[in-house]
Amino acid sequence: MKLQIFDSTLRDGAQGANISFSVDDKLKVIHALDALGVDFIEAGNPFSNPAEMQFFQRIAGLKLRHAKIVAFGSTRRKGVEPAEDGNLKSLLAAGTEYVAIFGKSHIRHVTDVLKATPEENLAMIGESVRFLTEHGKKVVFDAEHFFDGYKADADYAMRALESAANAGAHTLCLCDTNGGIFPDEAERITRAVCERFPDVVVAIHCHNDGDLAVADSIAAVAAGARQVQGTLLGFGERCGNANLCSIICNLQLKRGYECIPPENLKQMYGCAMEIAETANAAIRPNQPYVGMNAFAHKAGMHADGVLKYSSSFEHVDPEAIGNKRKFLLSEISGKSAIYDKLKNYFPTLDKNGAEMGKIVSALKDRALAGYQYEAAEASFVLLVEKILGKYKNSFDLISYKIISEQPAIEGKVASAIVKIRVGGVTKIAAADGEGPVHAMDLALRAALSDFYPEIARMSLVDFKVRVLDSDKATAAKVRVLITSAGGADGWTTVGVSDDVIEASWIALTDSIDYALMRRLAKISP
Amino acid sequence: MKLQIFDSTLRDGAQGANISFSVDDKLKVIHALDALGVDFIEAGNPFSNPAEMQFFQRIAGLKLRHAKIVAFGSTRRKGVEPAEDGNLKSLLAAGTEYVAIFGKSHIRHVTDVLKATPEENLAMIGESVRFLTEHGKKVVFDAEHFFDGYKADADYAMRALESAANAGAHTLCLCDTNGGIFPDEAERITRAVCERFPDVVVAIHCHNDGDLAVADSIAAVAAGARQVQGTLLGFGERCGNANLCSIICNLQLKRGYECIPPENLKQMYGCAMEIAETANAAIRPNQPYVGMNAFAHKAGMHADGVLKYSSSFEHVDPEAIGNKRKFLLSEISGKSAIYDKLKNYFPTLDKNGAEMGKIVSALKDRALAGYQYEAAEASFVLLVEKILGKYKNSFDLISYKIISEQPAIEGKVASAIVKIRVGGVTKIAAADGEGPVHAMDLALRAALSDFYPEIARMSLVDFKVRVLDSDKATAAKVRVLITSAGGADGWTTVGVSDDVIEASWIALTDSIDYALMRRLAKISP
Repeated sequence: MKLQIFDSTLRDGAQGANISFSVDDKLKVIHALDALGVDFIEAGNPFSNPAEMQFFQRIAGLKLRHAKIVAFGSTRRKGVEPAEDGNLKSLLAAGTEYVAIFGKSHIRHVTDVLKATPEENLAMIGESVRFLTEHGKKVVFDAEHFFDGYKADADYAMRALESAANAGAHTLCLCDTNGGIFPDEAERITRAVCERFPDVVVAIHCHNDGDLAVADSIAAVAAGARQVQGTLLGFGERCGNANLCSIICNLQLKRGYECIPPENLKQMYGCAMEIAETANAAIRPNQPYVGMNAFAHKAGMHADGVLKYSSSFEHVDPEAIGNKRKFLLSEISGKSAIYDKLKNYFPTLDKNGAEMGKIVSALKDRALAGYQYEAAEASFVLLVEKILGKYKNSFDLISYKIISEQPAIEGKVASAIVKIRVGGVTKIAAADGEGPVHAMDLALRAALSDFYPEIARMSLVDFKVRVLDSDKATAAKVRVLITSAGGADGWTTVGVSDDVIEASWIALTDSIDYALMRRLAKISP
Repeated sequence: MKLQIFDSTLRDGAQGANISFSVDDKLKVIHALDALGVDFIEAGNPFSNPAEMQFFQRIAGLKLRHAKIVAFGSTRRKGVEPAEDGNLKSLLAAGTEYVAIFGKSHIRHVTDVLKATPEENLAMIGESVRFLTEHGKKVVFDAEHFFDGYKADADYAMRALESAANAGAHTLCLCDTNGGIFPDEAERITRAVCERFPDVVVAIHCHNDGDLAVADSIAAVAAGARQVQGTLLGFGERCGNANLCSIICNLQLKRGYECIPPENLKQMYGCAMEIAETANAAIRPNQPYVGMNAFAHKAGMHADGVLKYSSSFEHVDPEAIGNKRKFLLSEISGKSAIYDKLKNYFPTLDKNGAEMGKIVSALKDRALAGYQYEAAEASFVLLVEKILGKYKNSFDLISYKIISEQPAIEGKVASAIVKIRVGGVTKIAAADGEGPVHAMDLALRAALSDFYPEIARMSLVDFKVRVLDSDKATAAKVRVLITSAGGADGWTTVGVSDDVIEASWIALTDSIDYALMRRLAKISP
């Protein structure tokens, strides 16, 4: 059965802490969601400020393959004619085929917050929906606090929906605005609405305050809801909106619903990464389906089990949604998991040989020192090459000196001198930069460029710093991850030190060693 | 109704990526969970390595107020007598009253993974449980892959439980090992088990691969399960175990179950923080109930609503579990939220005055530059003081120069020279340190100590670095957060720059300014 997916990443999602989108970001998100195949994209509230309205005007001509853009607003204000209401007028001006308006369905919110009579509120809903439908809009009516409202006064909550339905609303959306309901309530109340309004699309809109938004949404679908609202990555105020990624994957892979075109499901992981990157928000590693560890196996016993019989510890095939199985390299990794990771790089390695023992033991030592190779496979490969005696460094460091200063000199706050030796030849080079690591990176590249001109084809694309024992304040140990690119794929390296400069240096030199030893030609295994 | 809470943070939780516990850490976690009032604490697998066994021996005499310690292991190996099985022997040697052993209940895992006959596996379960009960243990039997096993062959899955029950198992634990079930399945299958075994405690053990572990656990409780297993913060392999914090808060606050002693519920937030800190793992800001943003309000409209009528956007009272309502300061914060935050610091501030307008506008500008004051209230107060003309800096910077170098000199990789002026008097001081920020911090304190001896009472307790646009690699903008303490409370400041040194300098000087302007006496508002 087809379910409509309604994504509000750009509207409700942008209410989340630390989430904001530039105009370019919004366009990227729209294209990513459209390519994934969601049905509706709520792109903002055109009445909230002039920039939002300009954005709707800008995207009015946008050619999308699948999705419809929705403008969000509210019912008219109390005592104002629809045609005079700035908010409703801006919804017309936004130029979308679909609009969503929220209104009250909880009797106490009507009387205590809105300070309106019950009848006045019903008129606000009906007249607003009617005004928009008469102007050719398809209207989604968001019944705010619907579930709490139904529990407080079911009859009034239903009358609020009825006002919208009678005025021609295309969709009745049941909102659990404070995120507190349980799945059994979502199911029971949604069922009552679906029975009462069999000819209108009923939508479910949940928040995750009780850690139940995915389950609530699925329960509402079981009760007859035919549209699910949420945000692809669960972005949203407080604990977030219902996570559409989890809902789509659960319902499409396990319950036979068609949420997005089946051939697009493999793009789920890539789409999630793209939106997270655009929002500058990391997907949490343990996020179901699309987290980097969602299919990662650590314990030796489990990793062995997965290799033998993948459904042991995998509820779905990670490839089905574009994610990958992964074996974590850690102090408790079993030999199987480590070997499985290494055999592509070192095909002659013996799983039961002495070298594997040395590798496992070195991993434990490095883990104690704060190293983690889970995200830094290139550094792990270099470590193993060192153990196997196959490592050949591309240069020797003689010294570096990096000066950070204020006042800045010609706008540069940092300068670096790096002295290296390659094959008996010494080279010293200097550079200034936006910060000490930037200056160091530029100076090292300058020093290396005579020996390895191909280094110009490699660039650093990501730089992450994690303070490990932050309670030691500025003397804390830090772990730096650097991702570089120079061919088809990127590679990531790691450095750990009490000193952020030294940790960066270690990661940077690993990154360059890894590239140069492969001569930038055969970077991937 | 009383529910038993069984926490496996130290066993299944430690399977999570990036999670590991030292012996001291484990003791901290045990005491925190015991103080919260959970019933069972699974502390590890004594057979997995000698350190684990030593840990059980060390805690054998531990006086706990409420919780029972549980040792974890497995049924005997195929073809080995229980009395000869190293794993079962180590469970006896661990010296706990309760033990948990896992065994297979899925017919295909028996035949394909274990390579045993169905009868052999039942014997392994029955004999292992019998051996342990005969030695005085209370046994929790963890039926691995129970739900998938029941779906594949319900009769065999039930016979596995029966073997354990007939041998005297105290608890039958139904595990959704790969985390893939839906709440309706959890409810249906748990109900069947509870009806079949009315005299044994039935436990539910879920994983979150489908984003449904909390809902699955609650559904199993509705069906008759009387023990819930999970990890307090949802730590665990892949997507984590069922989050006990969410389950306890949901069931105790909204469904009337007694999971922990009611008077302890207010300690939930503190306990969660303590365990997260011990594990060196941040609680994600949007985590239900205990996330720092779980009760945070951003949009002006919502923040106004909460002040008027708190259940508008709060499903429970945050104080009930020891968390707090919070208004986020961001570019889209409404004036109400900002004013609400500031009125404690600036009681004479006029909500509708011109100064409030300047503050709102400055916040927007700073947000564009990468500043976030959500976690850095001290820097926000200083910013407002500057706008109100109430700011008086405690020193002027003339210059700093920080040198990072390799090889290190006498083991120090960084040295700093800081030159400042206070009331017309110039002072220059130097220090070396573990890294550039550490050296800078020490040099600045040395320079200030003649003028402000009270600075010795202030210390930096936390240092965080976030790379904002990490795709700009080493030239990326970074945000540094520094938390300092000097009285009862700590305070947090923020600095943003392309240069990690400058960002640290900004946060550090804000931190010192904030403390010195309050003379370390009246730090809290």
